[in-house]
Amino acid sequence: MQRMSQLFTKTRREAPKDEQSRNAQLLIQAGFIHKEMAGVYTYLPLGFRVFKNIEEIIREEMNALGAEEVLLTTLQDPALWQKSGRWDDAVVDNWFKSKLTSGGEVGIANTHEEPLTALLTHFVSSYKDLPLYIYQFQTKFRNELRAKSGIMRTREFMMKDLYSFSRSEEEFKQFYEQCAEAYMKIFERMGLGALTYRTFAAGGSFTTGFTDEFQTLSASGEDTIYIDTEKKIAINKEIYTDETIAQLGLDKDTMTEKKSIEVGNIFPLGTKYAEAMGLRFRDEEGNEKPVIMGSYGIGLGRLMGAVVEVFADNRGIIWPASIAPYDAHVVVLDGKEEETAHIIQELERAGIEVLYDDREDKSAGEKFADADLIGIPWRIVVSKRTVEQNQVEVKERSGGKMQLLPLDNFQFSSLNFQ
Amino acid sequence: MQRMSQLFTKTRREAPKDEQSRNAQLLIQAGFIHKEMAGVYTYLPLGFRVFKNIEEIIREEMNALGAEEVLLTTLQDPALWQKSGRWDDAVVDNWFKSKLTSGGEVGIANTHEEPLTALLTHFVSSYKDLPLYIYQFQTKFRNELRAKSGIMRTREFMMKDLYSFSRSEEEFKQFYEQCAEAYMKIFERMGLGALTYRTFAAGGSFTTGFTDEFQTLSASGEDTIYIDTEKKIAINKEIYTDETIAQLGLDKDTMTEKKSIEVGNIFPLGTKYAEAMGLRFRDEEGNEKPVIMGSYGIGLGRLMGAVVEVFADNRGIIWPASIAPYDAHVVVLDGKEEETAHIIQELERAGIEVLYDDREDKSAGEKFADADLIGIPWRIVVSKRTVEQNQVEVKERSGGKMQLLPLDNFQFSSLNFQ
Repeated sequence: MQRMSQLFTKTRREAPKDEQSRNAQLLIQAGFIHKEMAGVYTYLPLGFRVFKNIEEIIREEMNALGAEEVLLTTLQDPALWQKSGRWDDAVVDNWFKSKLTSGGEVGIANTHEEPLTALLTHFVSSYKDLPLYIYQFQTKFRNELRAKSGIMRTREFMMKDLYSFSRSEEEFKQFYEQCAEAYMKIFERMGLGALTYRTFAAGGSFTTGFTDEFQTLSASGEDTIYIDTEKKIAINKEIYTDETIAQLGLDKDTMTEKKSIEVGNIFPLGTKYAEAMGLRFRDEEGNEKPVIMGSYGIGLGRLMGAVVEVFADNRGIIWPASIAPYDAHVVVLDGKEEETAHIIQELERAGIEVLYDDREDKSAGEKFADADLIGIPWRIVVSKRTVEQNQVEVKERSGGKMQLLPLDNFQFSSLNFQ
Repeated sequence: MQRMSQLFTKTRREAPKDEQSRNAQLLIQAGFIHKEMAGVYTYLPLGFRVFKNIEEIIREEMNALGAEEVLLTTLQDPALWQKSGRWDDAVVDNWFKSKLTSGGEVGIANTHEEPLTALLTHFVSSYKDLPLYIYQFQTKFRNELRAKSGIMRTREFMMKDLYSFSRSEEEFKQFYEQCAEAYMKIFERMGLGALTYRTFAAGGSFTTGFTDEFQTLSASGEDTIYIDTEKKIAINKEIYTDETIAQLGLDKDTMTEKKSIEVGNIFPLGTKYAEAMGLRFRDEEGNEKPVIMGSYGIGLGRLMGAVVEVFADNRGIIWPASIAPYDAHVVVLDGKEEETAHIIQELERAGIEVLYDDREDKSAGEKFADADLIGIPWRIVVSKRTVEQNQVEVKERSGGKMQLLPLDNFQFSSLNFQ
């Protein structure tokens, strides 16, 4: 249980004036994040809890794919990136670079294909060593000219990046599809399933010549996609041509234009990095071949921002239960601490994580407004009135439905909101 | 259960030639870490698990202190650091700095006093808002001229840094002592308790004029300390003078010189950063005062390296159970997969995490050597011989003691090594 009187953050009355995006406005106003510089945000205790919940959902799904977790480094050796040609600022224009005191330059990682591929040359030599699926949660740095969209497009952000290393195109494609399914599962677990479309986009080095984006419908999105709601498939505007539509067996008449937020992407890398870094294996016939790679990214802040954009109402944030910072927001009024302690005990016994608004200098109205702003799924109020009636009031943040439960013999599981 | 045949890392026959420190030699040889550049190491799956176990122990103890977890940023605004005078390379000589595409410079965080203190000015104004204890696990970057000591002194490292914000010197000191106790608890939980001394060191802005280091005895340590084993207290060589010894009520005749590794430090910051960043509060009488701060650091890689240095023997690493990558290292021989599957099932039912050496192309000798090198607390062997005797062989990595347990009705809890 976390007492709000002990939480160092405070809600603000007004959204910050220097933020244009709804996600950053709400997250700053509610005390989830703090703007350090343009495009650089600190995660405060409430925001950090959401962040960790998102991380854990993604980790579970990556582990279910049989992927192994590592932690690569931020500091990057230019020599590796020169091999792939991506050290050159003319090729990659958003590097942060720095100088080593001991001489030479060092990169601040913007992605990790090169170091991971190079690393694997120490462990992979035979077809028996493959396939491999390796992922991490690691900060990426992008020296963007402009930062906007709040926590959805930043100069510093935490990313889950997974890389696949396969022996054949078939093996690659099989995993690629498995990972696409895992991605949809992640978005479903975060409440974004119905709104998120696997979307054909430009690029890709294989047969179809496409990559896949996962786009969540949102009026505030930077992307434009064309969706087929029946087939639950979409095409990015970039490649929305008669030719593509025909190639994908879709029909222009059933496609609708929508704004959307890219919440994930997966794409074939082919043998580009394996060739550059010398990651080769000997197949069963003894022939040496480059490893076939794929890349699979999800930005955690991006996803958190998308959830805020999609679900928030005019009173504040609405978190899906799976990633909410706490499960229940307990509000005590009229000094009914003792009765509230009983309720909190029962909630915790049931494994419900509680944020407890025990603040003495706040009115009922202020507490309710903060509960709505912070957006925890269930608000539970214990007041003079409810105690007199031997009840507590439970309100669902998303639907706004209210229900009264008995104060004695309180059981959260007896809630019935269908 | 993790099959070794699926683990992408492999052990090496020989320690790497380019590492001088025992910790990096063993950790690389056993496949826990990979050297990216001098002083920059990637954590591979086994190493990452140890890392996470250490992180979780520290997190539990920090939460028990009532501290709140956040995630500050790596990119740093020079304006903040100019206020404290620490942007200047003449003052802090190990910055990594970079240029923003949009103009101006940016720092790659080497510590976080300035941004956290500045952040708190948004939330702290009254004595009612204090005290506060805030921590994070975040990477620090130090542009060291030379990198040595393996993962114990690196250019990029994960640190738990906690900062305390108090209203009075008494309040500060009380927490300072609580945190010192929490630190000893952390080192005890990692098996380093008996070897770790709270050590008086130079610096500090308060009464005694000392700061506190936590030093773990190790012949490979960079530091020299003088210990009083009776009082379980030590003095860093830097300040080991007759005056200090007298001041601390110690006796030169009972002090012994030892080499040691600094595994943590805590120190008073006084009002330096609060003054620089304008973090002030109004006390109960309405007087405005600067907040009194303290800083409490533990480097996770440093701690992991210290554990390796202290416990390793000539056959490899020996992990304390609390941070071992797995609890049991199960070795199958002679094709006894079925019997082994039964044992693994029983282990997992008991909550024991298993690394399973199912490799078919390795001899018994190679498997045993790898088990010793990797250093998991319990090695469990299922072979033709043990199965014939309806037994499995359980060996303790640290003491080397061996015990036979029944194959049918196997229960790990029936182990008795006292």
